[in-house]
Amino acid sequence: MFNVPIMTLKQPVRWGILACGNIANAFATALKDCPDSVLHAVSSRDIKKAKAFAEEHGATRAYGSYEAMLADSEVDAVYIATLHPFHLEWIAHSVQAGKHVLCEKPLTMNLREAKRAKQLADSKRCLLREAFMYRHHPQTQRVVDLVTSGVIGKVRMIEASFCFDSGTNPESRVQAKALGGGGILDVGCYPMSFARLIAGRSQGRLFAEPLELKAVGHLDSKTKTDMWTTAVVRFEGDVLANLKCAVRMQAENLAVIHGEKGCITVDMPWRCPGTIRIELNEKNSVQEVAMPKMRHLYAYEIDAFTNEMRGQPIGADAVGMRFDDTLGNMKALDWWRAEIGLGYEADTVR
Amino acid sequence: MFNVPIMTLKQPVRWGILACGNIANAFATALKDCPDSVLHAVSSRDIKKAKAFAEEHGATRAYGSYEAMLADSEVDAVYIATLHPFHLEWIAHSVQAGKHVLCEKPLTMNLREAKRAKQLADSKRCLLREAFMYRHHPQTQRVVDLVTSGVIGKVRMIEASFCFDSGTNPESRVQAKALGGGGILDVGCYPMSFARLIAGRSQGRLFAEPLELKAVGHLDSKTKTDMWTTAVVRFEGDVLANLKCAVRMQAENLAVIHGEKGCITVDMPWRCPGTIRIELNEKNSVQEVAMPKMRHLYAYEIDAFTNEMRGQPIGADAVGMRFDDTLGNMKALDWWRAEIGLGYEADTVR
Repeated sequence: MFNVPIMTLKQPVRWGILACGNIANAFATALKDCPDSVLHAVSSRDIKKAKAFAEEHGATRAYGSYEAMLADSEVDAVYIATLHPFHLEWIAHSVQAGKHVLCEKPLTMNLREAKRAKQLADSKRCLLREAFMYRHHPQTQRVVDLVTSGVIGKVRMIEASFCFDSGTNPESRVQAKALGGGGILDVGCYPMSFARLIAGRSQGRLFAEPLELKAVGHLDSKTKTDMWTTAVVRFEGDVLANLKCAVRMQAENLAVIHGEKGCITVDMPWRCPGTIRIELNEKNSVQEVAMPKMRHLYAYEIDAFTNEMRGQPIGADAVGMRFDDTLGNMKALDWWRAEIGLGYEADTVR
Repeated sequence: MFNVPIMTLKQPVRWGILACGNIANAFATALKDCPDSVLHAVSSRDIKKAKAFAEEHGATRAYGSYEAMLADSEVDAVYIATLHPFHLEWIAHSVQAGKHVLCEKPLTMNLREAKRAKQLADSKRCLLREAFMYRHHPQTQRVVDLVTSGVIGKVRMIEASFCFDSGTNPESRVQAKALGGGGILDVGCYPMSFARLIAGRSQGRLFAEPLELKAVGHLDSKTKTDMWTTAVVRFEGDVLANLKCAVRMQAENLAVIHGEKGCITVDMPWRCPGTIRIELNEKNSVQEVAMPKMRHLYAYEIDAFTNEMRGQPIGADAVGMRFDDTLGNMKALDWWRAEIGLGYEADTVR
């Protein structure tokens, strides 16, 4: 299905990083943990920034424009680390240049854009995946294995939250509307993806889509983006979820799965590894599963991606983000946003 | 406003307990902690049960029917401890007999019944109050004082839950529809009353009513009552709330108030006293306020009631349950139930 050269060659995948922000830094660091990958090129609108980044992470080439990097025939795969309003545009340019694309979450601003991105990637026979790092981590797999093992019985309610306080900063990328600011897109995508994963796995499917999704939220009076919001969701089988996210409210970042026989608490669900706590009602017992320090959090998604490039899609029971899962998550985020009246420029069909 | 004899006499209020279940037991125990109250009579459909109860708690009289107790002219005030579908009926009989009434929560099955109950009580110049015990406890007052002190700044989100697992027991009072089973009425009334209290107090009012209330829930296939449900609420000022309740799901029973500067966690919000934890973001500090063991949890509501009987309504800043607060809570519970399609016989206007 994908471009033939990549699939057959045994040499490491040569990565190009598009935009050199914080997350690109984490990604480049993780690449050093991936023997099947090498950082070939980096690009920034600011050539100085690109050069400094290349030097720090040992990239062969530094480009002062994204376009120039995409013209480099030695780049096999592109990691898109721009702000999310620009994801679709650079996915389009990247696949046009014949590159496979791993794009930061959320893949795009909404479901419509995500479908369009897929269409473009497919037409160029390029692999396109959303970089949901925690979904590829062994800790998440462990949580799912515990749920499917039946240790807590049928799942009744899933709680998940991702909240932080970015302060009074309406021009910042996490708050300004033109930059895709607001909590749902930036961090709400995590608890939503977790709830969809667990609701699905607990009922023998890969993931599940909301049958009902209801939310309330606070839009900042200046930015009109969501500063804090909470949603409730109902999945098939009346598995419920209770989600919170915020970019202007400090709160715990936790995931809890309540079942008929007990509950599972994940104390670092997004920034793995952490500790998984299993509490059984009847036995009044608490068991802790401490996850050992492993490879860089982002290394797992990178390996999953390069494996897919080589024709090895993620396994039947693996929890990593598939594209249909990405579409479902984008749709659920659209729904969450609609519930609190949060729209972006990208939502206007042009 | 109320019957004159009670207001002027300095002798202890003579209580009659209507129905002798678990909660009546707790109430009778608390009465021993109230110097202004005395347990005069108890009643049960089962005279043996009434006699045993009277003996255990030192009541002067035991009646084998509620009607007989209400005919006792020495009963000044009645505590109604029946299942909630029967509250309105016994409020009506009690005020007809000229008794002041403290009735277990929820006051009635819905707002319509609550208004009717008030009408009946007013017409007989009897005091009618909902027995929301935790609302009269010094711990709740302390939490409110902390919120209004501004220590955590403006309130952004309130979380509260009351969940327990009553097992597979569809005929039990907490599950059977005819007995008023289901989580919202039995325990959901607590988190809702807490959220309304805090949302109001944080904005200079006694309590606040939801502007939006959305929920999902699971109705048992057999009983058609709610086994677990979660609601999100928006109050004026975009103070949000996230509530959970369940009668078939074990989960933490907590209340957390997130503000712009930090959060307040109450570890035993309903069964006071517990510990109040204040966490401030900037200072990265945690301060614990351990509430000392005080009088019986129910003693505070009893004193508030007898004070009202004597013409001393609860103070301007006191957190105890006023009747308009009860009406607001009943209305919010109606809304929560409507969101998940939960109706009772009492909802059918006859």
